[in-house]
Amino acid sequence: MGFQDKLKNIKSTAISLSATGSDIRNGALLAVKNALINEKDKIFEANKLDVKAAEDQGLSKSVIKRLMFDDKKLSGVVDGIDQLISLPDPIGKALLSRSLDEGLDLYRVSVPIGVICLIFESRPDALVQIASLCIKSGNCAVLKGGSETKNTNRILMEVISSAAYKASLPGGCLIQIEERSEVNELLSCSDSIDLIIPRGSNAFVQYIMSHTTIPVMGHADGVCHVYIDRSADIEKALKISLDAKTQYTSVCNACETFLIDKNIADKFLPEFATMMKNAGVTLHGNKEFIEKLNSLCGNDISCELMDDSDYHTEYLDYACSCKLVDDVDAAIAHINRFGSHHSDSIITEDKNTIDHFMEMVDSANVMSNCSTRFSDGFRYGFGAEVGISTGKLHARGPVGLEGLMTYKYKLFGNGQIVGDYASGKKQFHFRDM
Amino acid sequence: MGFQDKLKNIKSTAISLSATGSDIRNGALLAVKNALINEKDKIFEANKLDVKAAEDQGLSKSVIKRLMFDDKKLSGVVDGIDQLISLPDPIGKALLSRSLDEGLDLYRVSVPIGVICLIFESRPDALVQIASLCIKSGNCAVLKGGSETKNTNRILMEVISSAAYKASLPGGCLIQIEERSEVNELLSCSDSIDLIIPRGSNAFVQYIMSHTTIPVMGHADGVCHVYIDRSADIEKALKISLDAKTQYTSVCNACETFLIDKNIADKFLPEFATMMKNAGVTLHGNKEFIEKLNSLCGNDISCELMDDSDYHTEYLDYACSCKLVDDVDAAIAHINRFGSHHSDSIITEDKNTIDHFMEMVDSANVMSNCSTRFSDGFRYGFGAEVGISTGKLHARGPVGLEGLMTYKYKLFGNGQIVGDYASGKKQFHFRDM
Repeated sequence: MGFQDKLKNIKSTAISLSATGSDIRNGALLAVKNALINEKDKIFEANKLDVKAAEDQGLSKSVIKRLMFDDKKLSGVVDGIDQLISLPDPIGKALLSRSLDEGLDLYRVSVPIGVICLIFESRPDALVQIASLCIKSGNCAVLKGGSETKNTNRILMEVISSAAYKASLPGGCLIQIEERSEVNELLSCSDSIDLIIPRGSNAFVQYIMSHTTIPVMGHADGVCHVYIDRSADIEKALKISLDAKTQYTSVCNACETFLIDKNIADKFLPEFATMMKNAGVTLHGNKEFIEKLNSLCGNDISCELMDDSDYHTEYLDYACSCKLVDDVDAAIAHINRFGSHHSDSIITEDKNTIDHFMEMVDSANVMSNCSTRFSDGFRYGFGAEVGISTGKLHARGPVGLEGLMTYKYKLFGNGQIVGDYASGKKQFHFRDM
Repeated sequence: MGFQDKLKNIKSTAISLSATGSDIRNGALLAVKNALINEKDKIFEANKLDVKAAEDQGLSKSVIKRLMFDDKKLSGVVDGIDQLISLPDPIGKALLSRSLDEGLDLYRVSVPIGVICLIFESRPDALVQIASLCIKSGNCAVLKGGSETKNTNRILMEVISSAAYKASLPGGCLIQIEERSEVNELLSCSDSIDLIIPRGSNAFVQYIMSHTTIPVMGHADGVCHVYIDRSADIEKALKISLDAKTQYTSVCNACETFLIDKNIADKFLPEFATMMKNAGVTLHGNKEFIEKLNSLCGNDISCELMDDSDYHTEYLDYACSCKLVDDVDAAIAHINRFGSHHSDSIITEDKNTIDHFMEMVDSANVMSNCSTRFSDGFRYGFGAEVGISTGKLHARGPVGLEGLMTYKYKLFGNGQIVGDYASGKKQFHFRDM
């Protein structure tokens, strides 16, 4: 079956899926969970093929760790499914109930968005999480996983979709695509797809965003900041800086730029630079920063010279940009100009400065006295997440179940016409019910 | 000042505006209201120039009525401003408050979207409504009104912005653009504009949507349906059909297509066709419909032949498409395929059929036993509206104050790092506060 054929009926499938009861969707989740457990040997075997291929290609250990699917990862996704089953049904919530006039009642009711296309990196557990979120929220899903796990993805999709269909979900509500060329075809299917959520490299997400008129939710880059204010507790500042930069360098909420208040540089900078050196982090800084660093540390610590216009850089590695700033307002201006509106943290003991920073920094996640690495659906207690959005429309920050819902207005009348209200014969009374 | 210069500082202005208190924004609204009243003679005079020009160009009476700004329209917008002042502040609402762990508190807080560009038709009262909504919601506004009211728009913007700035709103938060060429420049300003809300013709909105990467909210067309079910009350069906088609033909929520259950055609069609003929409405139908009509009414009622593929047509005039359908499911399938997901109504006395129709029709506004013309911010009791969205992301249906808001996550810590949670040294406790 060709790709366009696969999508042909998905809009009507989406409407049928949105009309299923909570018991059907929870039953399907339970069936998926049991099937994953029962078929785990087959899944692990397919995964071994992917791991072997990755080793043969000489991929790094950290990449291979991500694409492995074993008992531990299985138990993680099984827990996730249990958690989803226990959550209240997101469909059919009355978000507004208003009597407009006698016998004319308006409801705003939550409904699934419809058909969501998710393109994600080589993590088999992400496939299971995303499929489960779509089942719970009643959305049809078009899934494209990373090619490094194609064997694992294929068997996972077989197991998940056949369990879901047997448990009465409408056939065709979960579609897998395997080829990059199919992604290109899909970008023009604005009649079939309501939303694309791409995860991956900056260049890839930018490419998706500029080649489709379908709404895209997600983030292209994560240029996150930690600002160390004059009133920072030095010990907290050091601990948080190290975590934000090195706890996991290849992720979008890792810190890329440290902004250091000039009034605390003498106290903070020597320890900071030594700590980063010991952690294997290369410092980059503008002329002013390097002069200050040299004046404090001599030539002990090396630092790469960077232009002031390069503060957009996302390293995703053991490297960071550093800059001295005059005060919190200079830090805010820098973050709003050079950041990616993802996650930015201030370290200070001054309550007013915290409030000012958190109000004025225009990012999805603003933090005080903790690591930027906390911005994440699981750590925010949302259960699973489909991604993190730096856009301001619809959903912002980590996107869980709620971000996969929209609403419709239902108006129940008994013969009312607008002419009667326009002429003044009748009046609205607007009473919330 | 060039257009790019006008926009240069608008992002930082937006952040300052978002940080103003409710008293400042309500004070500005009050000042705007008083200025409009005090300067009304100047405004009416400018409006007379526009009306004169429109008359000289031979524009229709209904168009001239729309672009007039007189005491009645002024009193309407003044009432609207009073209503906005009385509404609770949409900024700073805690949408979620959760303790992640001891001393690590997460809040989801409502904030303005930022910079919103509104392009709207020649209605001076729309300019005042939109500017007031943006002031109340703390959003910077870039406004482009219809050129037929350029004199009125210019004086209104002068009066509104000078009153708002005197009342301490940040200078530059309200920008007017007058030239169509500036709209084209603006479409590439994704760094300055967060959202475009275009109102106008289908072709114009399509043009905007396909020439920018800035999110666009609104609707291109309004192909709305009334379905007359076999269990319809004939009298209600006739009354609602006439209102939905003729109460105001040039608006997006006017009915364009009538779907008639075959099982009620004999009873309904003769009266319907005669009523539409008397109202000056031209019927269009496919071969099957015309044969049925002729068999019932002879050649009394003329009907234009249309192809089955032409049911996408939006007339915005005294004309409509008609089609016979087998049952409610055929009606639903037709609406989901040919409609624009705007507003669709079913006429029936059968409660189960109503529920089925309202669940399965994939539109922003689904209605039963009332006119499609009810879908409107004012009639839904939202006060003013900035437009109606047929998209499923962010806001759907009539968009009022709520649709102009987004949120940010604020996380307050006291030294927490992710490493401690990743290693198992610490656990999240996730307690909603």
